Amino acid sequence: MSVLVVGTVAIDSIETPHGSAPQVLGGSATYFSLAASFFTKVSLVAAIGEDFPAEHRKLLADRGIDLAGLVVRPGGKTFYWKGKYHEDMNNRDTLEVHLNVIADFEPKLPAAYRRTPYLFLGNSSPTLHLSVLDQMEKRPELVMADTMDFWIETQRDELLRLLPRLDGLLLNDSEAKLLSDEENLIRAGRKVRELGPSFVIIKKGEHGSFLFSQDGVFVLPGYPTADVVDPTGAGDSYAGGIMGYLASDTSPPPGRLRRAIAYGTVVASLTVEDFSVERLKRATRAEIDQRLEEYRKMLAF
Amino acid sequence: MSVLVVGTVAIDSIETPHGSAPQVLGGSATYFSLAASFFTKVSLVAAIGEDFPAEHRKLLADRGIDLAGLVVRPGGKTFYWKGKYHEDMNNRDTLEVHLNVIADFEPKLPAAYRRTPYLFLGNSSPTLHLSVLDQMEKRPELVMADTMDFWIETQRDELLRLLPRLDGLLLNDSEAKLLSDEENLIRAGRKVRELGPSFVIIKKGEHGSFLFSQDGVFVLPGYPTADVVDPTGAGDSYAGGIMGYLASDTSPPPGRLRRAIAYGTVVASLTVEDFSVERLKRATRAEIDQRLEEYRKMLAF
Repeated sequence: MSVLVVGTVAIDSIETPHGSAPQVLGGSATYFSLAASFFTKVSLVAAIGEDFPAEHRKLLADRGIDLAGLVVRPGGKTFYWKGKYHEDMNNRDTLEVHLNVIADFEPKLPAAYRRTPYLFLGNSSPTLHLSVLDQMEKRPELVMADTMDFWIETQRDELLRLLPRLDGLLLNDSEAKLLSDEENLIRAGRKVRELGPSFVIIKKGEHGSFLFSQDGVFVLPGYPTADVVDPTGAGDSYAGGIMGYLASDTSPPPGRLRRAIAYGTVVASLTVEDFSVERLKRATRAEIDQRLEEYRKMLAF
Repeated sequence: MSVLVVGTVAIDSIETPHGSAPQVLGGSATYFSLAASFFTKVSLVAAIGEDFPAEHRKLLADRGIDLAGLVVRPGGKTFYWKGKYHEDMNNRDTLEVHLNVIADFEPKLPAAYRRTPYLFLGNSSPTLHLSVLDQMEKRPELVMADTMDFWIETQRDELLRLLPRLDGLLLNDSEAKLLSDEENLIRAGRKVRELGPSFVIIKKGEHGSFLFSQDGVFVLPGYPTADVVDPTGAGDSYAGGIMGYLASDTSPPPGRLRRAIAYGTVVASLTVEDFSVERLKRATRAEIDQRLEEYRKMLAF
């Protein structure tokens, strides 16, 4: 099965306590599609500017990612983000954001994409997510979306319209609390699930994640990584690993969803070991499978 | 095998977003010994004042906890702590502390205790820990200690003398970073282990814990608890569950240590479901075993 991701492709400039990486490849759809490409065929919808380096496009194409939906907007520049991580790397400051070509981008799905069975709506406005869903000729087998505090605060009504149309919602701990008005994360996850999605994943960064589904609560710690160089893209790689694995495995839930989350965790743990997408570039499926087995052993008692 | 704990028995007044519990039973040795008593025989060394309610002593005695080392200091009052938890309950403010009888308490082990095979040194000064260790007639089979930021900052030399004499050290994430001068917790855990203990457990509160041993890293998330009423004593219950289980199971490591940590996690998850020791009072070993199995299932993928 193939996966369609609608998200951002960006140029990032990153500073962490381990060094800096100016003008590197970033964006939610970039990390997502590279992560998912270890498992299945991926198509990407995003906007870039004329300045977007050919080498980055080549990297994505070489991984077999379908770029028919990667729109070059004439006269514009690629979305740019500059950020600096704190000493503990769980926090970061945004130093610069230039939306550039994505400021008024309204994704139009190529005709060939409108029947893709797995759809991931990368963090963007609920309005945009609803518009993408409306463009699908057929309701996909599985739709998962990412959201964030900004949309919960500014487009709550639109988000509440979106949620019943999703299979899965991905959000972090503080966002889950904000959306549910619950301090306890277990209650928050259950309450968000009542808003529509059949499963809810709450991300806790290095502390792992919770899955809430009809089968109850599933909990996984983060993969213990001694070499965190750059956390950028961890969440999107996690999502890509989950969706990519789900699309590649047609066995029945809940085992499948749990394995998918474990794969997402492992792929994210690779992403953070180097700047930008460097670690994902070097990774192999065999390495991911090996780390998954180590992870499984680490959790056994 | 029996377990000896040296720690505090206290009167607490607790406020949380769920209510308040004035003048209730608390203290590290209290939570530890109640938790450990589900698994094995426990002896307790601590000081109390003449004001200590008879019902609290009875509660401990009824659980089979040996109180020969519970010293009543004439003319003194029991250690008192008053604290208030924030809305998210990961943080709390200490409103009052009256050390009272523990201010100058130098534990003397009853002769019958000096050959106890399992020794837990509850959070106290490294000087006191060293003195207790020196009183043992025979090196215990297993010694585990808890420590905190205050001792790392004020008695680092004494702590560094203590560490090689321990089997296990228990500390939380910020304390591990402080002791090791490492921001990454995996590196921090490994570095603390190089200071002497054969295993190191880093507690991350609701996010679970890491075990560092000769068998590498073992990681467990917290048990997902929807009903957190009062987090007081979670860490001491965790330690009690670990030591109690270890003393009751003589199978070879590492499986034994991992199971012990899982048991500690589960016992701590019970403790926080009510104020003070109320939930531990109601708990049974069968309930703990059942929750352990649920926990195991939640982690499986």
